[in-house]
Amino acid sequence: MAVYTEVNTEQLEAFLADYTVGSATSLKGLIEGVENTNYFLSTEAGDYILTLYEQRVNPDDLPFFMDLLEHLGAKDYPCPPPIKNQRGEGLATLAGRPAALFPFLRGVSTTAPSTRHCRQVGAHLAKMHLACADFRKPWRKNSMGMASWHDLFASCRDAAEGIAVGLEDDIQQVLEAVATEWPEDLPRGICHADLFPDNILFTGTEITGVIDFYFACEELLIYDLAVTLNAWSISPYGSFYYSNSRALLQGYQEHRPISAAERDVFLLMLRACSLRFLLTRIYDWVNTPKDAVVKRKDPMEYVRSLRLHLKQESPTFYGFDE
Amino acid sequence: MAVYTEVNTEQLEAFLADYTVGSATSLKGLIEGVENTNYFLSTEAGDYILTLYEQRVNPDDLPFFMDLLEHLGAKDYPCPPPIKNQRGEGLATLAGRPAALFPFLRGVSTTAPSTRHCRQVGAHLAKMHLACADFRKPWRKNSMGMASWHDLFASCRDAAEGIAVGLEDDIQQVLEAVATEWPEDLPRGICHADLFPDNILFTGTEITGVIDFYFACEELLIYDLAVTLNAWSISPYGSFYYSNSRALLQGYQEHRPISAAERDVFLLMLRACSLRFLLTRIYDWVNTPKDAVVKRKDPMEYVRSLRLHLKQESPTFYGFDE
Repeated sequence: MAVYTEVNTEQLEAFLADYTVGSATSLKGLIEGVENTNYFLSTEAGDYILTLYEQRVNPDDLPFFMDLLEHLGAKDYPCPPPIKNQRGEGLATLAGRPAALFPFLRGVSTTAPSTRHCRQVGAHLAKMHLACADFRKPWRKNSMGMASWHDLFASCRDAAEGIAVGLEDDIQQVLEAVATEWPEDLPRGICHADLFPDNILFTGTEITGVIDFYFACEELLIYDLAVTLNAWSISPYGSFYYSNSRALLQGYQEHRPISAAERDVFLLMLRACSLRFLLTRIYDWVNTPKDAVVKRKDPMEYVRSLRLHLKQESPTFYGFDE
Repeated sequence: MAVYTEVNTEQLEAFLADYTVGSATSLKGLIEGVENTNYFLSTEAGDYILTLYEQRVNPDDLPFFMDLLEHLGAKDYPCPPPIKNQRGEGLATLAGRPAALFPFLRGVSTTAPSTRHCRQVGAHLAKMHLACADFRKPWRKNSMGMASWHDLFASCRDAAEGIAVGLEDDIQQVLEAVATEWPEDLPRGICHADLFPDNILFTGTEITGVIDFYFACEELLIYDLAVTLNAWSISPYGSFYYSNSRALLQGYQEHRPISAAERDVFLLMLRACSLRFLLTRIYDWVNTPKDAVVKRKDPMEYVRSLRLHLKQESPTFYGFDE
């Protein structure tokens, strides 16, 4: 977890008094949640996740996230919206922070994705893309999108060579390709933008929950597919799992076929998303105080995936049909 | 939490295969547990706490702790023993660490103890003392007992004056009193030795769980009462709550009356236990790397309680009858 806000008995009682879920029977702080403080909360009425939004989430974005969950939940997408309090609000205040109460979803994240997991993940990503087409506007802009990468790199450029020899050149090469080749006319929509294994719950290989929509934004749909493929078919050590990648692409295309134009930019998208996560990892590595509670994540993972994508010449490598 | 061991899907499945609780339907890492890694685990059979024992717990002590929970659980004390696996063992191995599976206890720790809470806490402490009288021997020695304080102080003495002016003298004074006045002939038994509000679960003001017995050991029973009174009736800012203290003493004495000889040493016990927690806090403050995941706790809390106890001349201050 990033920031951990302790909630005391009186604060919790006052918060729950606005809901119709009864009194707390259990409250346990959870480690998960990079941007927020999360509790497992049981009450007389059931089990919940209680989320307190910390500094890294812009409070102005919260209505977008809540409305998005509401929209998807109404279409039976497995991401239930917040429980409403007696004033009809999904978003309330607890311990001085914006807070929301969600139904507790059963399911376990996988740490060993199989092709069956990946096929489901691809399918759920496509379903989300389609289900959001009629989501109310305005849509949240991608605060971590290509427009931010140049400045992000400038702010941590000095650290790059210390992480891997030649990394500065690799980054520069992708930044230039992004600047000149980024497509303007491909399908855009609401993207999850962070669909890592941590954020999908399974029972067996069936998806029971998709969580952590706090990077969701308007973006190229093919970019979201690249982020997801990167997260599910490349190991932290840079090994590529072809069968996972292919299964994910197949699962996706069963619901939303990828056009030739999208396929043509797929390599650029993969390089771009490796760059995006690499840059934030370098930035966090350099800027996170060593005594912070946040555990800094190793940037090397994305050096490896970036270099894997730089070596390829065709999207068929990832399991597209010839 | 102190150390956080990630458990992957295969490890969890292999671990659970030895039990008869079915497959995992949920696994969430918990923040709580200073010495261990704790997960909230749901399976097809129910909800559990899955504990992995980390470096700070001596593996040789684990059978003592497990047997103690078994002993108390058999007497309906609210601290259920570990679930046994199919080999009849409460202690198993997970992710290379000793691990145990406990029934999940409903209940919430209080952050605002009232006299009703404190009366229950006193009663449960006395019941534990009595229930352990026939616990199998040998009993675990108090690794944090008076014999350890001299060396602990020597190792962090230089830091004391930086924390509070005159603290070195205060500590020296209590160390000398402990060395010369520590009673040898008062009732000893199994003490929890860490009965802080974090370690008691309530539903309303009824105790539903007593947890974290990982400091339990043989010690003077009156010392355990002092530790508990300190934890429940003095705020981190040094305010003393007389009515809480009195309720705790009354609750305790309903089950185990305190003798005149125990009462006579109560002030020494209070000073000693403030010293014990103060010394470990100073030690941790000095020795915890600043980039550790452990959040260092402020030693000042125990400087304040130590000085409160040094000022008193009679145990009646704490709510004993005249």
